[in-house]
Amino acid sequence: MDMLTFTLNPEDKTPLYHQLYTYIKTEIQAGKIPYQTKLPSKRKLSDYLKISQNTIQAAYDQLIEEGYIFPLERKGFFVNQIDILKKLTVPTDHDIPINKLKHPSVRYDFSYHGVDTPTFPYSIWRKLMKEVISEYDTELLIQSDSLGNLQLRNAISNYLHQSRGVNCSAKQIIISSGTEILFQSLIQLFDRDSIYGIENPGYEKLNQLFTSNRANFKAIAIDRMGMLPDEVRKNGANILCITPAHQFPSGEIMPINRRMQLLNFANEAPGRYLIEDDYDSEFKYSGKPVPALQGLDTNEKVIYMGSLSKSLSPTIRVSYMVLPLHLMKRYHEKLSFILCPVPIMEQKVLCRFMNEGFFERHLNKMRNIYKKKRDILVKCLLDLNCPIQISGADAGLHLLLSVHNEMTEDQLIFAALKKGIKVYGLSKYYLDYSYFDIAPTILIGYATMQEKDIINAVQLLSEAWF
Amino acid sequence: MDMLTFTLNPEDKTPLYHQLYTYIKTEIQAGKIPYQTKLPSKRKLSDYLKISQNTIQAAYDQLIEEGYIFPLERKGFFVNQIDILKKLTVPTDHDIPINKLKHPSVRYDFSYHGVDTPTFPYSIWRKLMKEVISEYDTELLIQSDSLGNLQLRNAISNYLHQSRGVNCSAKQIIISSGTEILFQSLIQLFDRDSIYGIENPGYEKLNQLFTSNRANFKAIAIDRMGMLPDEVRKNGANILCITPAHQFPSGEIMPINRRMQLLNFANEAPGRYLIEDDYDSEFKYSGKPVPALQGLDTNEKVIYMGSLSKSLSPTIRVSYMVLPLHLMKRYHEKLSFILCPVPIMEQKVLCRFMNEGFFERHLNKMRNIYKKKRDILVKCLLDLNCPIQISGADAGLHLLLSVHNEMTEDQLIFAALKKGIKVYGLSKYYLDYSYFDIAPTILIGYATMQEKDIINAVQLLSEAWF
Repeated sequence: MDMLTFTLNPEDKTPLYHQLYTYIKTEIQAGKIPYQTKLPSKRKLSDYLKISQNTIQAAYDQLIEEGYIFPLERKGFFVNQIDILKKLTVPTDHDIPINKLKHPSVRYDFSYHGVDTPTFPYSIWRKLMKEVISEYDTELLIQSDSLGNLQLRNAISNYLHQSRGVNCSAKQIIISSGTEILFQSLIQLFDRDSIYGIENPGYEKLNQLFTSNRANFKAIAIDRMGMLPDEVRKNGANILCITPAHQFPSGEIMPINRRMQLLNFANEAPGRYLIEDDYDSEFKYSGKPVPALQGLDTNEKVIYMGSLSKSLSPTIRVSYMVLPLHLMKRYHEKLSFILCPVPIMEQKVLCRFMNEGFFERHLNKMRNIYKKKRDILVKCLLDLNCPIQISGADAGLHLLLSVHNEMTEDQLIFAALKKGIKVYGLSKYYLDYSYFDIAPTILIGYATMQEKDIINAVQLLSEAWF
Repeated sequence: MDMLTFTLNPEDKTPLYHQLYTYIKTEIQAGKIPYQTKLPSKRKLSDYLKISQNTIQAAYDQLIEEGYIFPLERKGFFVNQIDILKKLTVPTDHDIPINKLKHPSVRYDFSYHGVDTPTFPYSIWRKLMKEVISEYDTELLIQSDSLGNLQLRNAISNYLHQSRGVNCSAKQIIISSGTEILFQSLIQLFDRDSIYGIENPGYEKLNQLFTSNRANFKAIAIDRMGMLPDEVRKNGANILCITPAHQFPSGEIMPINRRMQLLNFANEAPGRYLIEDDYDSEFKYSGKPVPALQGLDTNEKVIYMGSLSKSLSPTIRVSYMVLPLHLMKRYHEKLSFILCPVPIMEQKVLCRFMNEGFFERHLNKMRNIYKKKRDILVKCLLDLNCPIQISGADAGLHLLLSVHNEMTEDQLIFAALKKGIKVYGLSKYYLDYSYFDIAPTILIGYATMQEKDIINAVQLLSEAWF
């Protein structure tokens, strides 16, 4: 090839060498400069295009580096053989769902996700962040412990011991972002043929999580005391995922005897475990919180799991689990490649937040705020004097409302929506159709609602339903 | 039971009701107060212990709530039947490995983990953090998009388009913490019977990751151009994990023709994909960076993956992937329950860091710093005039050094360590014994080393080896 039919564009801000490189690359890709073609020499092209030989050298170098051309000593530059890309017909009907926007007419949302945002201790958090980023310059950039910052694991261990009666030391704690990731690690840690028992009704994500991780699981019926041991045996499950502090969604607290029964089930055979998700145990409104089931375990059978989603904020994305020692050993052997996904900055701020007493104060404050919201909600509901039944209100951030007005669950939700209120049906937390046997039941979360809104919203619910 | 043999401890700071509750609970757990025993009435116990009936009521309430006792109307309080916990003999020889400490005698570490920490833009990061935490009060606490903050996904999309030649829009981007988590999502997204092809030698974590996720994978031999298509076919792999920008650990850049061959392999059949890990592509030291392979793909066959571990800091823990549209649709259907694990605060800071041009400036600065380090390292090595061969030095943050002095790889590492230098053997990145065929080779990372340290360390290496 004698010359390139190429015109440089002086208006273009792209460097000259890059314009030339792009032109030649595109021509080669399109098959317009065939395999083994000799490119013009640098001198000739330089004369022709009125640009320096260095510019041409830079373009040729880039083409050599990417494999489009190759140099032959004393012979010049030649085009490489390049496979032509096969084109497939790619279907184009990909409906990517856009994020569901809040229904425009929703004025009040009894969601059980989220926390009371106005009370978040911004000024303290801000202050700690500023201090942390000033103090720990270098450390913030060095990946320390793959299980999580050791000081934070100590702080969590102290908190769990004092507030939740958990028996553990920092070396048993693994910090992560969200309980889903911890569950994924556990699925990798346990034997492949394990059968997980999940509560029915229960936390809807577990179903999805075990399905997408291709783990075997069974939906196990619960009664008011929690997972039924007979059902566990009938289903052959060996690892039970339970929420003793506040069953989701029923809101019931597991009494001591059921705890003992499930622990003894685990004690009967190797490979049996309980995964205790203590998800909103901080909020119990009369007496003191019921200690974690883990505290009763003397046989290394309980994996304790918790998070700050409810106690601080779901966007903080910090969760943790406590592994029995023999499982911790297995974790080190099998999963030590997993790095703690929480930025060290967040870990350090949180550590100080806990160690300096802010977390405890925040919990006490939030317990009072949520108790007040719950009391107002319960009072408003009872004052309606309508055929409803409240359950699961002793703890946590939601309660259940059975409504006896001949409406189906869907009708209740839709009637509420017409009044601008979003409520949630219990049936969607069932993995089978056993909810057919119970009265239509609505899940009412109150953490994100302000007090006056609760009063207004309940009034609108009564107009919608009665 | 007439009375409890219980003495309150006035020195104890625990509330009285709680002391009483704990005492009764412990007695029941130990079987000392048997099933169906009637507890003393509140009045009697109040007289006997000289504490108020309210205190006793509070203790009894707590015991009722936890299921230890039950009230019978007009009859009093009775102990529940509680299963006795079976005790197992738990083996106690759990050696939890403590974190490997840096060898005390290591003066210089040629690790390829980590970045140059002194140049991290602390003051800008600090300023942005302060602004973000002041501006976005409420939003920081509300879980927004499960794929990651949309503004940040836009910023990443722009960056990838401009700097890496990636074809994508924000709606194809998923933000996460570390590429391990993204790989786990992909394993869940793809068919169970997929066979992953990983580079041999290659990034050591992929092996562990696929093993612990129980995914099928094959180690595929590479040559200087990257993964060998014939080996791919021989092994029956359908999803290939490749590092075209800078193969790890060889450091080679995949030329255009191998890129086309692998793309065409993927184009031949449905279910075939390429996962392009573009892990340190920002650092190329001559010419412009080679654009991502994804930019060549017109058939939705490439999953692009990147992270800020090398370009910013491994502790920032932000990674991202670009899914082809049809896979994004599948992701929404199957994995929408996965929440973005990066705190919203970090995402907002990073978004501003990118949008306000700081990221680009940082990359340019770091490219110069790393180039200087590499140049010094290469010059020092060449100046030794010893039988060594350098390869893979055109890009990235490490190079390979083949040493021809009759020493084995282990001997090279050990001799260096005796001089206080930590270097890394290439063989550990092989999944088989094919490294037997090559000269002993050492991996030298230089990102964390300062210039004068490089000079000293190379001098010590020459003393150790020649």
